[in-house]
Amino acid sequence: MHTNDEQQRVVALAGGVGGAKLAQGLQQCVGARLTVVGNVGDDMELYGLHISPDLDTVMYWLAGVNDAERGWGLQGETWHNVETLQRIGAEPWFRLGDRDLATHLQRSQLLRGGQRLTVATARLCEGWGVDATLLPVTDEPLRTVVETNDGLLDFQTYFVREQWQPVVRAIHFEGADSSRLTPEVEAALNNASIIVICPSNPMLSIAPLLAVPTLRQRLQQSKAPVVAVSPIVGGDAVKGPTAKLFRELGEAPTALNVARHYADFIDAFLLDERDDHERRRIEALGLRVATADTLMHSAADRRRVAEAALALGDTF
Amino acid sequence: MHTNDEQQRVVALAGGVGGAKLAQGLQQCVGARLTVVGNVGDDMELYGLHISPDLDTVMYWLAGVNDAERGWGLQGETWHNVETLQRIGAEPWFRLGDRDLATHLQRSQLLRGGQRLTVATARLCEGWGVDATLLPVTDEPLRTVVETNDGLLDFQTYFVREQWQPVVRAIHFEGADSSRLTPEVEAALNNASIIVICPSNPMLSIAPLLAVPTLRQRLQQSKAPVVAVSPIVGGDAVKGPTAKLFRELGEAPTALNVARHYADFIDAFLLDERDDHERRRIEALGLRVATADTLMHSAADRRRVAEAALALGDTF
Repeated sequence: MHTNDEQQRVVALAGGVGGAKLAQGLQQCVGARLTVVGNVGDDMELYGLHISPDLDTVMYWLAGVNDAERGWGLQGETWHNVETLQRIGAEPWFRLGDRDLATHLQRSQLLRGGQRLTVATARLCEGWGVDATLLPVTDEPLRTVVETNDGLLDFQTYFVREQWQPVVRAIHFEGADSSRLTPEVEAALNNASIIVICPSNPMLSIAPLLAVPTLRQRLQQSKAPVVAVSPIVGGDAVKGPTAKLFRELGEAPTALNVARHYADFIDAFLLDERDDHERRRIEALGLRVATADTLMHSAADRRRVAEAALALGDTF
Repeated sequence: MHTNDEQQRVVALAGGVGGAKLAQGLQQCVGARLTVVGNVGDDMELYGLHISPDLDTVMYWLAGVNDAERGWGLQGETWHNVETLQRIGAEPWFRLGDRDLATHLQRSQLLRGGQRLTVATARLCEGWGVDATLLPVTDEPLRTVVETNDGLLDFQTYFVREQWQPVVRAIHFEGADSSRLTPEVEAALNNASIIVICPSNPMLSIAPLLAVPTLRQRLQQSKAPVVAVSPIVGGDAVKGPTAKLFRELGEAPTALNVARHYADFIDAFLLDERDDHERRRIEALGLRVATADTLMHSAADRRRVAEAALALGDTF
């Protein structure tokens, strides 16, 4: 199997900005033959709207309309709505841009009309002009709840309002036990030539995907190789709370520890070249390891890292 | 009783732009001693948001933040959200401005938090800086449904999407029978020195208020004089569908016919000077009549018409 194989079907598990960046790189490589399975643990109801921040981050990056500097949201965004909310005393800690709000309005309208989140997401991706397929891992409500020294916080309260400063004791995925993979996710996994675990936060972005019953077993039993790309660069997270979270939960923020989280269901691990000293110990987990510069500042970087992950899969 | 009496409490029944204009004039005269009872028949759910277009029109005029040229919405509005909805294929026929959306988000959040529409409206008026009190006539769902040659249409579909072009056969107020005046409206009516029926559309703005059980009887039995200001100028409506609706429902669009709609519960009628030829026949309904130039182009006009209405009430 080769990267430029026209039949190659790539499934990526992705959440957050790191995941969105690699997903965009993979889309550069295989276009519409990419399916991204996205996290819904970050979803929230606000003002009666259904907001899916993690799906939207991936969608905007895939559509090429993302604000690259801020990481989340749309480029050329305006903030008249949130300024007005402040003016009338609403204290909006979750800032929605004027244009981004269109996504939330449209999604909410479709869901209230009885559509599944999968269908609403497909309609939004069509509207925004995404080539790849983006699938929420489940259509059922699954919510990430963070147990902290300040009490239980829903994900956005922890992440956005509290700026991930509370000390985390545990992370829960409410509703996970009764959630199900969608038929579309099952079909994508069955038809995959390679499955890529994006360099997302293992505990906040990938764990809520794995919390959906049967996903982990399906990855373990997958005929297609499963390749993880390390979210750790030089013994630290590129951005966000990954390193802090690892420490609070009693682990060093190393590529090795990420690989340990995934070892039971992945076949290979793309390690950042700065962490090459960990290679032997990761290989000792039974994984095939390659190294690359995994930092993704430019579109060319993103394509390069995607190619490295696909090439690692091609060795199987 | 005199217009400048510091104890004078004015209650105005208002809907639409004509109603909002006179309400603003009355607020110029008596400030916080004005209570406006507003129409909720135009309310709608859109994208999961609760939208109260008629309350908002009054609120924005009272706050002095209205777009005077367009009639509805906010001055200095931007349209990035609706442009984005169009871009992603959502075909939004009900255009919400970026800033105006803040009102709908905040109201929806408050209602979903269990607050009554009355309380949500008060919070919004506080946020926007309204001196007067604005009260929805009821906290229960009451919806104007227009029976047309094209079938049953909810109010906004008729008014905005279809631009009030379908021929109307009848107007219904769904939920009216089980709705109740709020305690705040009852108290305002009990404490009123004068009650003003604003120059609103009798069938689309005032009738849905009167459809709430007991309101008409309370006006009939009111100790305070009830003064209506004519929405007809020179045998035609100033704006909007009033004249067309009258004709479709088999009545000439005259001040006399408006007075007939109200004759059982009003004491006096402020007639536009262009319709002075109807004075005798309106007086024959048992009403005290005064005339004025009722067109309200400027803030000074609005104050002048408000003063004329209050002066007519002062004659009782």
